[in-house]
Amino acid sequence: MSTTENESAVLDGTKDPMSDKFVYFFGDGAAEGNGGMKDVLGGKGAGLAEMTNAGVPVPPGFTITTSVCRWYYANGKTLPPSFAGEQHDALTRLEASFGKKLGDSNDPLLVSVRSGAKFSMPGMMDTVLNLGLNDVSVEGLALKTGNPRFAWDCYRRFIQMFASVVMDFEKNQFEHLIEQLKHKRKVKLDTELTADDLKSLVLDFKRFVRKQAGRDFPQDPLEQLALSRDAVFRSWNNDRAIYYRRQNGIPDDIGTAVNVQAMVFGNLGETSGTGVGFTRNPSTGEHHFYGEYLTNAQGEDVVAGVRTPQPIAHLEQEMPAVYQQLRDITSRLEKHYRDIQDFEFTIQEGTLYLLQTRNGKRTAQAAVRIAVEMVHEGLITEQEAILRVDPASLDQLLHPRLDPKAKVNVIAKGLSASPGAAVGIAVFDADTAAEMGHAKKKVILVRKETTPDDIHGMDAAQGILTATGGMTSHAAVVARGMGKPCVSGVSAIHVNDKTRTMTVDKLVVKEGDWITIDGSTGRVMLGAVPTIDAEVSGEFGAFMAIADKHRRLKVRSNADIPRDAIKAREFGAEGIGLCRTEHMFFAEDRLPFVVQMIMAAPLTKAISEKLAAREKALAASLGGESKTIKAEVAALKKELAAPMKSYKGALAKLLPFQRKDFYGLFKAMKGYPVTIRTLDPPLHEFLPKREDLMVDIATFSRATTGQKKEMAKKYRMTVAQLKKGMPEMLRRVEDLHEFNPMMGHRGCRLGITYPEVTEMQARAIFEAACQIVKEGGNVVPEVMIPLIGTVEELKDQAAIVRRVAEETKKAKGVQLEYMVGTMIEIPRAALTAARVAEEAEFFSFGTNDLTQMTYGYSRDDAGKFLPEYVNRKILPGDPFVSVDQEGVGMLMDWAVKNGRSTRPKLKVGICGEHGGDPASVEFCHRTDLDYVSCSPFRVPLARLAAAQAAVRGSAAESDRR
Amino acid sequence: MSTTENESAVLDGTKDPMSDKFVYFFGDGAAEGNGGMKDVLGGKGAGLAEMTNAGVPVPPGFTITTSVCRWYYANGKTLPPSFAGEQHDALTRLEASFGKKLGDSNDPLLVSVRSGAKFSMPGMMDTVLNLGLNDVSVEGLALKTGNPRFAWDCYRRFIQMFASVVMDFEKNQFEHLIEQLKHKRKVKLDTELTADDLKSLVLDFKRFVRKQAGRDFPQDPLEQLALSRDAVFRSWNNDRAIYYRRQNGIPDDIGTAVNVQAMVFGNLGETSGTGVGFTRNPSTGEHHFYGEYLTNAQGEDVVAGVRTPQPIAHLEQEMPAVYQQLRDITSRLEKHYRDIQDFEFTIQEGTLYLLQTRNGKRTAQAAVRIAVEMVHEGLITEQEAILRVDPASLDQLLHPRLDPKAKVNVIAKGLSASPGAAVGIAVFDADTAAEMGHAKKKVILVRKETTPDDIHGMDAAQGILTATGGMTSHAAVVARGMGKPCVSGVSAIHVNDKTRTMTVDKLVVKEGDWITIDGSTGRVMLGAVPTIDAEVSGEFGAFMAIADKHRRLKVRSNADIPRDAIKAREFGAEGIGLCRTEHMFFAEDRLPFVVQMIMAAPLTKAISEKLAAREKALAASLGGESKTIKAEVAALKKELAAPMKSYKGALAKLLPFQRKDFYGLFKAMKGYPVTIRTLDPPLHEFLPKREDLMVDIATFSRATTGQKKEMAKKYRMTVAQLKKGMPEMLRRVEDLHEFNPMMGHRGCRLGITYPEVTEMQARAIFEAACQIVKEGGNVVPEVMIPLIGTVEELKDQAAIVRRVAEETKKAKGVQLEYMVGTMIEIPRAALTAARVAEEAEFFSFGTNDLTQMTYGYSRDDAGKFLPEYVNRKILPGDPFVSVDQEGVGMLMDWAVKNGRSTRPKLKVGICGEHGGDPASVEFCHRTDLDYVSCSPFRVPLARLAAAQAAVRGSAAESDRR
Repeated sequence: MSTTENESAVLDGTKDPMSDKFVYFFGDGAAEGNGGMKDVLGGKGAGLAEMTNAGVPVPPGFTITTSVCRWYYANGKTLPPSFAGEQHDALTRLEASFGKKLGDSNDPLLVSVRSGAKFSMPGMMDTVLNLGLNDVSVEGLALKTGNPRFAWDCYRRFIQMFASVVMDFEKNQFEHLIEQLKHKRKVKLDTELTADDLKSLVLDFKRFVRKQAGRDFPQDPLEQLALSRDAVFRSWNNDRAIYYRRQNGIPDDIGTAVNVQAMVFGNLGETSGTGVGFTRNPSTGEHHFYGEYLTNAQGEDVVAGVRTPQPIAHLEQEMPAVYQQLRDITSRLEKHYRDIQDFEFTIQEGTLYLLQTRNGKRTAQAAVRIAVEMVHEGLITEQEAILRVDPASLDQLLHPRLDPKAKVNVIAKGLSASPGAAVGIAVFDADTAAEMGHAKKKVILVRKETTPDDIHGMDAAQGILTATGGMTSHAAVVARGMGKPCVSGVSAIHVNDKTRTMTVDKLVVKEGDWITIDGSTGRVMLGAVPTIDAEVSGEFGAFMAIADKHRRLKVRSNADIPRDAIKAREFGAEGIGLCRTEHMFFAEDRLPFVVQMIMAAPLTKAISEKLAAREKALAASLGGESKTIKAEVAALKKELAAPMKSYKGALAKLLPFQRKDFYGLFKAMKGYPVTIRTLDPPLHEFLPKREDLMVDIATFSRATTGQKKEMAKKYRMTVAQLKKGMPEMLRRVEDLHEFNPMMGHRGCRLGITYPEVTEMQARAIFEAACQIVKEGGNVVPEVMIPLIGTVEELKDQAAIVRRVAEETKKAKGVQLEYMVGTMIEIPRAALTAARVAEEAEFFSFGTNDLTQMTYGYSRDDAGKFLPEYVNRKILPGDPFVSVDQEGVGMLMDWAVKNGRSTRPKLKVGICGEHGGDPASVEFCHRTDLDYVSCSPFRVPLARLAAAQAAVRGSAAESDRR
Repeated sequence: MSTTENESAVLDGTKDPMSDKFVYFFGDGAAEGNGGMKDVLGGKGAGLAEMTNAGVPVPPGFTITTSVCRWYYANGKTLPPSFAGEQHDALTRLEASFGKKLGDSNDPLLVSVRSGAKFSMPGMMDTVLNLGLNDVSVEGLALKTGNPRFAWDCYRRFIQMFASVVMDFEKNQFEHLIEQLKHKRKVKLDTELTADDLKSLVLDFKRFVRKQAGRDFPQDPLEQLALSRDAVFRSWNNDRAIYYRRQNGIPDDIGTAVNVQAMVFGNLGETSGTGVGFTRNPSTGEHHFYGEYLTNAQGEDVVAGVRTPQPIAHLEQEMPAVYQQLRDITSRLEKHYRDIQDFEFTIQEGTLYLLQTRNGKRTAQAAVRIAVEMVHEGLITEQEAILRVDPASLDQLLHPRLDPKAKVNVIAKGLSASPGAAVGIAVFDADTAAEMGHAKKKVILVRKETTPDDIHGMDAAQGILTATGGMTSHAAVVARGMGKPCVSGVSAIHVNDKTRTMTVDKLVVKEGDWITIDGSTGRVMLGAVPTIDAEVSGEFGAFMAIADKHRRLKVRSNADIPRDAIKAREFGAEGIGLCRTEHMFFAEDRLPFVVQMIMAAPLTKAISEKLAAREKALAASLGGESKTIKAEVAALKKELAAPMKSYKGALAKLLPFQRKDFYGLFKAMKGYPVTIRTLDPPLHEFLPKREDLMVDIATFSRATTGQKKEMAKKYRMTVAQLKKGMPEMLRRVEDLHEFNPMMGHRGCRLGITYPEVTEMQARAIFEAACQIVKEGGNVVPEVMIPLIGTVEELKDQAAIVRRVAEETKKAKGVQLEYMVGTMIEIPRAALTAARVAEEAEFFSFGTNDLTQMTYGYSRDDAGKFLPEYVNRKILPGDPFVSVDQEGVGMLMDWAVKNGRSTRPKLKVGICGEHGGDPASVEFCHRTDLDYVSCSPFRVPLARLAAAQAAVRGSAAESDRR
């Protein structure tokens, strides 16, 4: 019978509890339990047992098991018959071990009674300290400590705590009495009350208890113990605990253990003291003994900050033996737990007690250094080291962060869309941001949402703040790509473009006001908060080298321009997994030609189609009719000439730009593979907004010369062209309007409609690649066709790419390897992967779109319900942050298996935002992908996550063997 | 070795062609080939052989096999060595059989030389007629027919045709000579030329041939034959034929046969004649001999309309023996081919020849009647009868259609979105359409696109015409639901709301002009074209009864209101597969409350969430802070009161409307299951358009009292409320704005955010159902949750529905069966069907959305590329019309199998537009669905398609056995 079955049998009352042991003693260098017995002893109890067994001088005590708690609830709040005897025996052992007795009038034993469930529920249940004090033993404590004030203060605290926990008093009911007394004594602080004051306060307290509860405060320590223990059991089911369990998925029926432990005091004179410490520096990771202490003080004094603690090194002078013992013990503990230890200790009259030790929390920087050094010290394996650092925490090492000592005035919170802190003056449009940026001013670009038009402003800004949009909104994606801090979806702020302000409730932030954003926490702050730069230590490289040794997945980066590619290489990217060619289109020197192309292309298309139809008719025509058709064909050819010239002309202008961009990317990547995606976004993204055009057309006739010039600049026309050009452009914008652009005319659907665009892009790619080869470089272009849903689409586009590749290679006389593959981002492409792989040499999962389509969620709109879904556990998390392994993952797994069934060597990667999410990277490893690709700043994170996946995978495999 | 292998071996030149037979004779009551030899003899040759073998008096002849054609191409345009001898033998047999000789000076044999490939390629290849005429035999023909003009006309036609086909002359080159002659003779018509004129024309023709070709026109009939035969072989590879094969997927390498057949003449005097006929009436299906003929005439005279043909019954008087023979033969043919025959015959000097017979084309009405009667006659089985009627053609029987005799002026073509013809005056907005409709005027509602706001106008119109939108656009779907003709996506028309006109090129149609649309063909016509009503004969019912006997799939209808439900029952629906509750929301008397609900709900939600958070904080609070929180809670409760009252009030108003609607549906369906879908569309669909609101707000201050009243009416406010109300509404509209509404806050996502709406709908459903039960009726409500992507969503909504069901049953004291299920329309729901089925008692595939998400196509936008995709065969067809069986079908199949693995009795249906598409219905049958559901007018179609699927399925199964 497993423990769990056992437990529920007890709970049901079907099992004879007499066969269970209910109380586990620890002390005298040994414990009845051990560290593995969390089910029975709770986390704290098991920890105390383990420390005791490890030879650590823990104050002795005993643990009442969780099964007693369950019995308590299952049997009308009674205890198992054999319990009383067991508790008595344990208490007797405790008194013997510690050399003190409960209620003793000379040197009383005081104990703490604490909850301790299997899973940590910090602060949710009750604790009673100083138990054992009564009117007699308080005198014993005063005598023993020589400090009556301390003794009476302990007693009044005990009464207060006991009354609150056990007798259902409200905590602040006693505060009133204290205030009265202070008023009477004309003092302000509790510490100004004397021993006698406190003694009279105890009398007041006891009187108050009798009055309110109708009984005397219990004087019998055993009764105090019994009542406190049961109160702890009851606190298992208080509202806070229930709520906490619900939030954290902790079962309601496992119950809590109760730990009864001797209290030790660091305030019994100059040979006593108390302190906290770490076996290594938790901020930097340096391997030195680190901590602080106070002599003749209690633990809370260290925390309270009334006295300034001493550095722990000083203890070596004050109490060399104790210091040595502490170092020995904590070194032993670090070896035992094989991790940095965070410990609390008390020295009671020269005797050292460890109250607690646990694996120390540490900064990312420390985690990296400690992991590397522990490997060198032989303390942990490389695999363990890899698992010791949270991949997500690496972000901290790569971005500036707020000075933790700085005061901050947080005015709103949003999503931590792109990590790091940024400080600047608020600016509400991209042009101004770009202007100020060029003038070396620090700005934060604040927008309702960003669009591709804002790129130049984002580029010039320190950080980006948006009122709407989720973790994968335009602002978030682009900012992460740029490695710039971004806080998105701050619903509390209202951005007003016209007044150039943002408001939060009644607070108005104007253009030019300083603000600070923290993209790691989502906070928006007023004023310029000081930041500190990232300190990437040498250990970082060493640590990543260990990780790289163990990972199988390659890590690439998404990068659109050479600058990003170089950054990506610095972070260890092994190729570019996604170059979005359209991002190049938005640059100021290209956009005019892109617009020219978009204005001409559909017209060209329409006339060409008519022409083809008539030419077909001509071929099939008989007799006299052919003459008429010939004339029609000639007329159409004439009509086609002008738009075709404009269309081809625009493409011819774009070709050298693209070629130069690709050349730069190839050069930066030094032979690593570069995946270039052909044009993806809907064409209307490159044109002005419909509303803007309508307003400008409406106001044109009344506009001043200056305004007209501005319009001309905006639309990239001459003033003379505006009158005809703006309505023409409006017509095209309206033609291109879509109800659901995400599912409209974009991706390969563009390349199929306008094959000349694909051809131009392919030519730019292969001309650039040939140039690299001619210069003696290496290059492996991978041309990726986006958004295919059927293999026929890929065939169409791949044929163009391959033809252009062969033409270019021949023309340049160059040998060149290349691949043609596709994004898998439409469910149908995943479903039909076996057929798609007939044509595709590689797959790259576009998990953003794949998630959108698989769930039917528009990522730009899902903010309306996704947060509620996550809160209410309808979804386990945001599927745009971490791959939905059940649904989207099923499609990915299917696509990989079926794709490789057709083409065993099919290369498979992922280039969605998920490529930088640790859980998703682990999933990609398990699904046998070849690589993940993410934004440059996430590359180290992905490398580590991939290594962790490999380590966990091997461990799971050896488990199975 | 199979025939195909044999063929390609010959083609390769690897097989000894001597072992093949190259020429197949037919005549004298027997043929060397047979009807199964299409590979060898081509379709026409095999048909001639079969007819001959069936004892039909076919003019004798021989077929040169397709392998000769392949040899011809594979061996440098030569013929197999043994061919010449075979052809000689066949020709000798032909002359003997027919009693005439090629080139004979008294009674010459004339032959036709025609192509005939395995697959029909009508008009694509060449034919030569009257072969055998030369300067000698033309005199023989003149003598024999006693008609020199006829003989010389035949000769000049032969020269013209031969020169064009064999000698590469352009056809119109000879026309010039004819014109010259007519000019000289001062006549206008060819028929005015005399025998001598034609004789001189033949001389001119021959002279022209010699001059142009540098050789005499060949006089030797054998040379004529050889050259014509080779020309037919060559025509296999002319441009038209190649293009046609590419379009129709016919292989390029199978070649054509050549049929050489004696020509017969119906113009040899009063005992000759020619005619066409059907064994039954192809328009009505009546079982009577049907056709017409002319004595002393050639086939083309019947078609040309110069002389008026006689009804075939007249032949009985003129030539009783021939008539009897014709009836005997055609009756035999009908029994042989087991279908109505469409035949051509010629009587040459009292001898009857059948030139052609084939299964006759027929109207839908005739098809139904013939199928039923042939079953009664024992000619075909019920299964065969079911397969004889094209399900799509049934639409013709259910809608009025254009009078086929009417002249039409087609001004544009669009998609045949909803069948039937409609005539009315053009009207450009829904309100006017509704007004005129109520005034009993016939109107066609013309819109750029329709929206749910237009429903009342659509309802009042005869038909709907839209410039944009596909087969599943709003206009198309709603029109099909209403059974109203609709032509959508007419890109050639431009609709201008302001000028109330539509323009096609330069033509302007104004409001009030009469137009006609034909929703069965997509044509838009100027003026009022006469229509004829559908004539549904008694056979229709008999036929559907046969179909119903053989189908397994149930057929339900989509219906939102009792009127549609009654119509659906009339058409044989066995339940309602989809009731869209939101369609009820658009009715004039409900919309105000819907708007009230939408205005209040999000506010209610926002305050409630704050309140819950504070209440949670209160529960967890300690000490003094609880007082502050209590105050906050009280304030929030107060703030919540007003919007909550408005929200709950609106729902309370909607409840009785919904209950009444559901009651009506249940009543109409008399115990058949009724599937009701909870609220689906995004809320902004119920609010005014953003632009309208902005304009109205901008113009409000300057508006006249009348205009203000109009605004008040539009926004359902008082004039006093407008000033505050319009901006408030605008804010809500902007809050609700979505970038991709198709993937936004809709479907169950609404019900989860606003559970009160689901609760109200559930209450209305169950209260209505309880009422029916109390009245002694039967009812099986099936509550369907839309757009789920994860089982958790369904759990959330199903819990509400089941709770309300139990509450209502208890309150009303009624026993009631019901089911809770879900749409499967999100790919993820299909992928995780095994888990969804834990909660769902039924699935209904929403294939519209499932297709959208699986392909990533917005059906409202796909018009930009789908037509090109279909044209270029990137897609085999429009996936919104017929289910994509490879991709979407894979998901459906997966969902059915996995859903039933969890819940073996899971009921599964389909309620997308595809439920009315025959191929999709067949797929649903194969995928083992329980039912399909479609618009009422498609129910008969679906019933037939389901029966055909069952029949084909059983046939396929017996084949496997």
